[in-house]
Amino acid sequence: MVERNLDTTFMALADPTRRAMLVALSTGEKSIGELAAPHAMSFAGASKHVGVLVRAGLVRRRKIGRQQVCTLEATPLRDAEQWLRRWEGFWTDRLDALEAALKEKPQ
Amino acid sequence: MVERNLDTTFMALADPTRRAMLVALSTGEKSIGELAAPHAMSFAGASKHVGVLVRAGLVRRRKIGRQQVCTLEATPLRDAEQWLRRWEGFWTDRLDALEAALKEKPQ
Repeated sequence: MVERNLDTTFMALADPTRRAMLVALSTGEKSIGELAAPHAMSFAGASKHVGVLVRAGLVRRRKIGRQQVCTLEATPLRDAEQWLRRWEGFWTDRLDALEAALKEKPQ
Repeated sequence: MVERNLDTTFMALADPTRRAMLVALSTGEKSIGELAAPHAMSFAGASKHVGVLVRAGLVRRRKIGRQQVCTLEATPLRDAEQWLRRWEGFWTDRLDALEAALKEKPQ
């Protein structure tokens, strides 16, 4: 199930507007209008992006009066980060190998 | 430029076969046939996935005789991991807040 969620999480993250929306939500909940504002985007355009984030489980959307208010749901981001963290050792190993190779080089 | 690369990196990662191919390449270079084998996939199907990874800068592909050999290029994965790492503080803050709330609760 996590594997399937990774598909939708990474797909949702593959767009700069959606990534910016998540960053905006990290400081607190926002209306769709507030999320649209920095992108000179229509309400409908912003709402479509929010829909992708909602379906990926990254955002919760609820109605307060006439407004739709969005809240960040960070758990899928943590799963994605954990998947990517496995490569950390890979970079470190490569750097260690490079360092070792440089040390072996005659001065 | 990194922002644009994040689009293609996250898009490339939004597929379980491509993620599995990257994991397979983390232990060393592989031919397209070797990458296809665990997925009961045609050479053409595997080659298409490898193409997406190559265009995203995650894999380098070169010909050795009649074989195409693939190597992992991990740098874009590091950029993606760094983008996701910003949320680490967010989870910690939420856990701290939860812990504080639990402590305040009368025993």
